[in-house]
Amino acid sequence: MSSPLHGAAYLVIGLAAMLPLPPALAATSSDLGRRLVTQGNARGATACASCHGEHGESNAQAGFPRLAGLNAGYLRAQLEAFQTGQRQSPVMGPIAEALDKAEVAAAASSYARARAAYPAAGVESADWDGGETLARFGAWPDRHLPACVQCHGPGGRGVGASFPAIAGQNAAYIQSQIAAWKSGLRRNDPLGLMRSVAAKLSDAEAAAVAAYFASLPSQPRTGRTAPPAAEGVSSEVPAASTVVASADRYFRPPPRSAIPSGPFGDAVRDGEAIFRRTDTHPLSSQFVGNDLRCENCHLDAGRLANSAPMWAAWVAYPAYRPKNDKVNTIGERIQGCFRFSMNAQGSAAGATPPPDSPVIVELMSYLYWLASGVPTGDTQMPGRGYPKLEDTALGFDPQRGAAVYAAKCALCHGQHGQGQRVGGRSVFPPLWGPRAYNWGAGMHAVDTAAAFIKSNMPLGLPESLSNQEAWDVAAFVNSRERPQDPRYDGSLKQTRERYHSGKYDYYGKWRTPSGRLLGAPAARR
Amino acid sequence: MSSPLHGAAYLVIGLAAMLPLPPALAATSSDLGRRLVTQGNARGATACASCHGEHGESNAQAGFPRLAGLNAGYLRAQLEAFQTGQRQSPVMGPIAEALDKAEVAAAASSYARARAAYPAAGVESADWDGGETLARFGAWPDRHLPACVQCHGPGGRGVGASFPAIAGQNAAYIQSQIAAWKSGLRRNDPLGLMRSVAAKLSDAEAAAVAAYFASLPSQPRTGRTAPPAAEGVSSEVPAASTVVASADRYFRPPPRSAIPSGPFGDAVRDGEAIFRRTDTHPLSSQFVGNDLRCENCHLDAGRLANSAPMWAAWVAYPAYRPKNDKVNTIGERIQGCFRFSMNAQGSAAGATPPPDSPVIVELMSYLYWLASGVPTGDTQMPGRGYPKLEDTALGFDPQRGAAVYAAKCALCHGQHGQGQRVGGRSVFPPLWGPRAYNWGAGMHAVDTAAAFIKSNMPLGLPESLSNQEAWDVAAFVNSRERPQDPRYDGSLKQTRERYHSGKYDYYGKWRTPSGRLLGAPAARR
Repeated sequence: MSSPLHGAAYLVIGLAAMLPLPPALAATSSDLGRRLVTQGNARGATACASCHGEHGESNAQAGFPRLAGLNAGYLRAQLEAFQTGQRQSPVMGPIAEALDKAEVAAAASSYARARAAYPAAGVESADWDGGETLARFGAWPDRHLPACVQCHGPGGRGVGASFPAIAGQNAAYIQSQIAAWKSGLRRNDPLGLMRSVAAKLSDAEAAAVAAYFASLPSQPRTGRTAPPAAEGVSSEVPAASTVVASADRYFRPPPRSAIPSGPFGDAVRDGEAIFRRTDTHPLSSQFVGNDLRCENCHLDAGRLANSAPMWAAWVAYPAYRPKNDKVNTIGERIQGCFRFSMNAQGSAAGATPPPDSPVIVELMSYLYWLASGVPTGDTQMPGRGYPKLEDTALGFDPQRGAAVYAAKCALCHGQHGQGQRVGGRSVFPPLWGPRAYNWGAGMHAVDTAAAFIKSNMPLGLPESLSNQEAWDVAAFVNSRERPQDPRYDGSLKQTRERYHSGKYDYYGKWRTPSGRLLGAPAARR
Repeated sequence: MSSPLHGAAYLVIGLAAMLPLPPALAATSSDLGRRLVTQGNARGATACASCHGEHGESNAQAGFPRLAGLNAGYLRAQLEAFQTGQRQSPVMGPIAEALDKAEVAAAASSYARARAAYPAAGVESADWDGGETLARFGAWPDRHLPACVQCHGPGGRGVGASFPAIAGQNAAYIQSQIAAWKSGLRRNDPLGLMRSVAAKLSDAEAAAVAAYFASLPSQPRTGRTAPPAAEGVSSEVPAASTVVASADRYFRPPPRSAIPSGPFGDAVRDGEAIFRRTDTHPLSSQFVGNDLRCENCHLDAGRLANSAPMWAAWVAYPAYRPKNDKVNTIGERIQGCFRFSMNAQGSAAGATPPPDSPVIVELMSYLYWLASGVPTGDTQMPGRGYPKLEDTALGFDPQRGAAVYAAKCALCHGQHGQGQRVGGRSVFPPLWGPRAYNWGAGMHAVDTAAAFIKSNMPLGLPESLSNQEAWDVAAFVNSRERPQDPRYDGSLKQTRERYHSGKYDYYGKWRTPSGRLLGAPAARR
């Protein structure tokens, strides 16, 4: 550990030891990779290091991307895209074509294992403030532009093979890639997600967001002086000039920058933080028994119209709910989300937050503040809840839905609905299984899920599924097993009759491939 | 008990036994009274019974008032008013003048002890609906017209010698008296209260309210078929034509008739009932440790501007309160009222209602409904709270305040601030002593009390005190002993320094006549 280089070498060995490859093969691939990086091959591929550096540190001035530590599968896919022309580059095209399959894999693995120090001076930028806001919060009300970190993971450090790390990447390179998505020069993005995102960004925004990610450390462990942690909540908002005007059908909650200072403002900020990171926030994590957060069902942290926005919910309570046959305050309604959607029964506390606990008080403060100016008792706010989806002639069918799921949803939520975690945190929520919402959550109803999906999924591509696709995929997701309904009374039949008699509900009615009725006790884990 | 008459006689004996008169004198007075009723005297007083009936049953057709069971002090005061001309009547004037002091007292006592059956047919009226609303709820927003029952007691059955029973009184008589107050023919009302009330009533309203009280039983025990009990909450509102238009400076909560049906509406109705009768309502009484109700500090059941109206409070929470140094939800704020203003520590429960209890949920439902349409977060609503009263050059002084109190407040709140109860219920709230708000209540601060008093007291005569009078009487009231501050920590000095350091606060600073500092433990009862 006497020099950074020794430290990096130690890391490479440590990480390589964790790879699930047989030692012999690993050694072979590693040798090949190292050779390609430093020497290239005899068929026309120049040494990768000549542009990307021996440790993937790259040459920022020249606009070449840093590769150190990027996901191997992602790097492999990029080389393949250069081969097929889905990515076009006069430099990389010929080089990629000169690599065979084994060389592609070896070069990708080599850089995936590499660790590179940052330039001593750090990467500074005159203005990444507006970029930070886009990166961390997106721009929803007009544009359905997700936060970059919603797919690229906390701090932009990447999620799996599909969503590369962008933290610490050269700003000029990020900016050039956004331009390439926009122009169609680059087309290898799943679901066309990046083409959609890039199309929504102005050049100034692209520059700002690129500068922001360039300023972030690619790994938390580098020890480099970083800008304010990406964990907190910023008060910055995009400059007015970057907001695309649109028909103003929906209420606009006040901008984050308007949260007042002082104890009430602190409560609002805490409430927003809990809303965004319910499963990991120190105040609320003990009450969350799965991998869900408030913002999973209420996009843009409860601000987005047609995504069950909180400004519409606040003014609608107290209200009678048939679900529990009583008048509920907003506090009790929030408790319901913990109980069902966040499966509090499986949490450390084993119960919902008490009605006067800081969690509830601070969430209430946030909701109240979001609703600033909304008339008390107005239950007809445009954009309230999820817009109801009309039944289709075909009805809904889990079988058909499975195909939709594989094509449009599995990318983020995983082939088995398990979601994706990174660095111990859930990035994409699970949709079924033991870490998903339980059988009491509103989302388990096919009509509710279909309505949510149609208006909000895939993230940033709302309304892109047909009504039929939305119905079918909702049926597929909700015909899978999930945590027991906390109202289960020991009898599947009785629980079904009492709470699950609706036609949009598979609980106690649909059989898993193994023949078990959904919700039957044996299915509990 | 074989006939109504025997029953009545039994009652007379029973009540007479409770009078604090020496038996001999009582017998004498009773004999004299009976003689006057049945025979009159030799100096020109005709027999009372010839108009008022032997048992005070009266002759309704002729417009003569029922006297049976009216308060003796009240009846005496009326005869004296006929003698002085404060009441003018060509019939009663000469008769009263023909009575000496002892005869006045004897005749009054005789009728006070009398019980009379109602006409078998009952007293029916085509329309007492609008009258019921005025009688039970008043007409506040424009007119500061208190509900009749606020002074005449629950069911209009009278409070002490100053506020006669009007339940079961002849409608024509009630109506004629309202007209007499209005025209100045009758002027013997304390503080001019009835002249103020009568001036605000249209002829149609006077007729309706008279008809309503005529339809009520004068005593609960008569067993007569009565119209709907005066306990519940009616959905009637005065006809639009009877509402005097005024500059519409203040928000108007929806009319009571707009409370929806169904479970939510039920919660609102329950909430209103709890607000009006906190100390006796089955859900809330266990949490009230004194004789106060929400509506005592928030007139017109929380609807009235400048009387800390609930529609303004609802939209102002959650909010930070220095009082407990945290962000409070409206639920916690309501708990604060129970803790301090209603002295929950002295209640059966010994604590405030839990945050998710029906009491809090239903009060919240009522407040929320009152605020229908008010913009969320608007903390600048005109009429919010009590309008701050500027300091005066003279400051405030309990000594001067004592005189104001005796002249303007003791009538209702009692000479010793003990309030007035009737039939086991508090009608006028105590202002100090063991059944008043405790040392932690907002009202214990002289500035808060002065602001409340100036805008709201005496009931129905707002703004009638000078600023100086309001300051002084607030100082007087709040320099008297009351239940301990529940935050008291065993040290008067510490509790004073921590919670009572303000200049409008006598706690731990002012000495009672016996030399004890206010709030000192020995003063606790």
